[in-house]
Amino acid sequence: MGENYERLRVLAGRVFDLASALDLLSWDMQTYMPPGGADGRSHAMATLASLAHEHFVRDDFGEALTAAESEVQGLDPNSDEVGIVARLRRDFDKSRRVPTDWVEHSVRTTGLAFSAWVEARKASSFADFQPHLEKVLDVKRSYVSFFEPYDSPYDPLLDDYEPGLKLATVREIFAELREVQIPLVQAISEKSDTVDDSFLHAAYDEQAQIDFGLEVIRDLGYDFNRGRQDKAPHPFSQSLNRGDVRITNRVYPNQFGPALFGSTHEAGHAIYSQGIAPALDRIPTLSGSTLEGAHDASLGIHESQSRMLENLVGRSRAFWTAYYPRLQAAFPSQLGGVDVEAFYRGINKVERSLIRVDADEATYNLHILIRFEIEADLIEGNLAVADLPEAWNAKFEEFLGLTPPDDRRGVLQDIHWSDGYFGYFPTYTLGNLISLQLWQKLSQDLPDLETQISRGEFGELIGWLNEKIHRHGGKYEPMDLLNRATGEELSAEPYLGYLTDKYSEIYGLS
Amino acid sequence: MGENYERLRVLAGRVFDLASALDLLSWDMQTYMPPGGADGRSHAMATLASLAHEHFVRDDFGEALTAAESEVQGLDPNSDEVGIVARLRRDFDKSRRVPTDWVEHSVRTTGLAFSAWVEARKASSFADFQPHLEKVLDVKRSYVSFFEPYDSPYDPLLDDYEPGLKLATVREIFAELREVQIPLVQAISEKSDTVDDSFLHAAYDEQAQIDFGLEVIRDLGYDFNRGRQDKAPHPFSQSLNRGDVRITNRVYPNQFGPALFGSTHEAGHAIYSQGIAPALDRIPTLSGSTLEGAHDASLGIHESQSRMLENLVGRSRAFWTAYYPRLQAAFPSQLGGVDVEAFYRGINKVERSLIRVDADEATYNLHILIRFEIEADLIEGNLAVADLPEAWNAKFEEFLGLTPPDDRRGVLQDIHWSDGYFGYFPTYTLGNLISLQLWQKLSQDLPDLETQISRGEFGELIGWLNEKIHRHGGKYEPMDLLNRATGEELSAEPYLGYLTDKYSEIYGLS
Repeated sequence: MGENYERLRVLAGRVFDLASALDLLSWDMQTYMPPGGADGRSHAMATLASLAHEHFVRDDFGEALTAAESEVQGLDPNSDEVGIVARLRRDFDKSRRVPTDWVEHSVRTTGLAFSAWVEARKASSFADFQPHLEKVLDVKRSYVSFFEPYDSPYDPLLDDYEPGLKLATVREIFAELREVQIPLVQAISEKSDTVDDSFLHAAYDEQAQIDFGLEVIRDLGYDFNRGRQDKAPHPFSQSLNRGDVRITNRVYPNQFGPALFGSTHEAGHAIYSQGIAPALDRIPTLSGSTLEGAHDASLGIHESQSRMLENLVGRSRAFWTAYYPRLQAAFPSQLGGVDVEAFYRGINKVERSLIRVDADEATYNLHILIRFEIEADLIEGNLAVADLPEAWNAKFEEFLGLTPPDDRRGVLQDIHWSDGYFGYFPTYTLGNLISLQLWQKLSQDLPDLETQISRGEFGELIGWLNEKIHRHGGKYEPMDLLNRATGEELSAEPYLGYLTDKYSEIYGLS
Repeated sequence: MGENYERLRVLAGRVFDLASALDLLSWDMQTYMPPGGADGRSHAMATLASLAHEHFVRDDFGEALTAAESEVQGLDPNSDEVGIVARLRRDFDKSRRVPTDWVEHSVRTTGLAFSAWVEARKASSFADFQPHLEKVLDVKRSYVSFFEPYDSPYDPLLDDYEPGLKLATVREIFAELREVQIPLVQAISEKSDTVDDSFLHAAYDEQAQIDFGLEVIRDLGYDFNRGRQDKAPHPFSQSLNRGDVRITNRVYPNQFGPALFGSTHEAGHAIYSQGIAPALDRIPTLSGSTLEGAHDASLGIHESQSRMLENLVGRSRAFWTAYYPRLQAAFPSQLGGVDVEAFYRGINKVERSLIRVDADEATYNLHILIRFEIEADLIEGNLAVADLPEAWNAKFEEFLGLTPPDDRRGVLQDIHWSDGYFGYFPTYTLGNLISLQLWQKLSQDLPDLETQISRGEFGELIGWLNEKIHRHGGKYEPMDLLNRATGEELSAEPYLGYLTDKYSEIYGLS
């Protein structure tokens, strides 16, 4: 490539290095940092975030970008170079609208709100969190104001996680989900005694659970030479660069399931990040108003990869045809008397519950729909922060027929709003929908897919995903990438068909 | 304080945050980073090092510094504020002489040299490392040229680790050591069968070794709320800020000693870093041409703290009066039949050996003297890199009566030169000397010290060190700090007296 493009790569590499260092600070904060390090860490993270922004929006970056744009004109529009320049242009133009002062102020405000949320959740007292959430919303509102005009003030926030997507589109698709999933879950709940999962709630040796999960994700294709798994209170995946993509997990000594499905879920994210083309590494990417090291199309695309390995692979009959004998061998006293069909039904048991992160496949989207409607109302000014617990509980009753007994198990359960992640929640559900659209195409292209999975062979599956999704990193907008991979627009239909078929069969619904 | 001082603190805090993030990248590289992360890490570290330098030498930093200097005039000259401003002035003036391009070039050159050293050491082939070491020396020579005029080109390098100290002073003191230590070690070697340490070379459960070490360093005063110990190939201490000071260690399953003494050594460093006054936190400090988060007087002062806990405390009769019963209880089959006196003699056995990091108290300085003489010759142009192995082996014969059988166990054993750490080696020996000067004063101020140690009580010892050394961080130059604490100038006499007395008694020398 020409020298202008190379110059842009050098400047982008410097911003990437800052963003990637910030990613390590964040990973360390959630894994190994001693409690006394919290104060110093919040300073360091605010400094790195604002320096990354400062270096990204500098005039010389803009000049290098413009020069590189001229240089790549005429190249194959699908080349990595054209894709990188286009993505940097998009993120640069967005970031230029945001003053560096705002970035620093935002990191500090959410840092304080996060600490307040931790304490408020412990005390189960929304009132303690309310003034902080109001400040976070003020910060988000000033952010939104940098992007006027818009159809909805929610749009610029959503666009940070899901480039190009609008609130109106999400509303339309989520209405379809609601239409089908509420009655489906209602029908299942009437036959709740059809499925037994009591054998999953027993003593399962922690190390044996970890070892089994590591074996599975190694087979799936997670490269431990370029990654590692550590313990953390919440499972997450963190890409520092394509040579260092880490995951975390937690293990419950008295329950089988969360650790394994946590591993397969995070491995789905990590295999995506490990699989971007080498030429796309060291490109900073805007995600949620912050520059990050990980380069990807969107959170929805990311979640489609994790959900696919967790659910479409990991909770399928084909997968357990291969792995159940090994699992029985690892836990003979707990599973020796449980056949594979009973196990399959057990890990797919549906239960309406209070906590999103514990939700099963059939109810998960309903948890998201609740949060999405509430946060859209907050951002659009139709709901006051003070009225949030009441609105939360009302929606919960409407969608899941339950009323949280306290704020801890209700409106205070998620970290997202304290961190300023408004517009993030819908991407979980988009990931579910996209996973099925990809799966349909995959099944056409690889008619042998199910047989392969039932033999524990994932090479062609991951190869297809790499070719169609992973290697392209963030060079296409997510809906464009989906269309290139499947020939389709975003649609809820495949997912709803899958869900209805799977659970009608398990629960014997007509 | 006034607003100029506060402005300086804000700017210094930003540089500190970059330096501290760099420290975390370095810690992670040596503990948890997967192999695939090496390339990305070297980029990130070069970027952070050069940005820290860039932000430190900016004109606005210089202006803030000058303004703060006016503001603190008239304050108590021993106040933290005056000390911080003076230290920042010193480091700023040094850093301003160094172009940021040099910093980036230096980090990249040593990064490549480090990788080459790792491979050359594996292959035991100095020839593979030679061209890289020549490049590193070129980089150091250009660094030295920024500080002309000087008495010796070694002086600016030494000054980076031991502010204010000159080659001539070190030469003079090291000559005294040589005069005493070579014949002492010779005399000991003639009575080598006087001491038996075979019981230390047996199977010692790894976890039990770790647990015993953790108990000891907790008792010594290492605060685990603001620190942690992880495994790493080489023990080291890393301060990110005073709330997060970590140590690492390694354990040999067939030898008792290295793990425990590694823990007490690193705890000595870490207790120093945890003990700086809160007002001195978030001040970047120049160490070896690089800005670091840790704020301290010098490497020699640092090493005095680690050597004191490792040797003057950890290898003393008084210490084992308190801890030997516990150790015997932890390892009854290995130590049940060994009395405390035999154990004391065993852990103090002297042996001339090839490897510095395995050297005992009596021979350690000789390993340093060899390296010091060689590196001074290299920097002063009296020795060519190509002649290094020959010079090394000749010195080894002269000082320790041994000839290394290969480069791996000879000139290639240490990381320092590959990393550009010229001027660093003497600080190990300075630490030994200073530890004894402090110990003499301590023993005067706390006549009960030995009795306290024999009861496992370290509160007054650490309290004295905190008052005289730790809390002052880097606000005094090391020789000034030593003088304030002891009323003495740097001297080899106390250390040589200690060494001669201790080993004459153990080995029955006349």
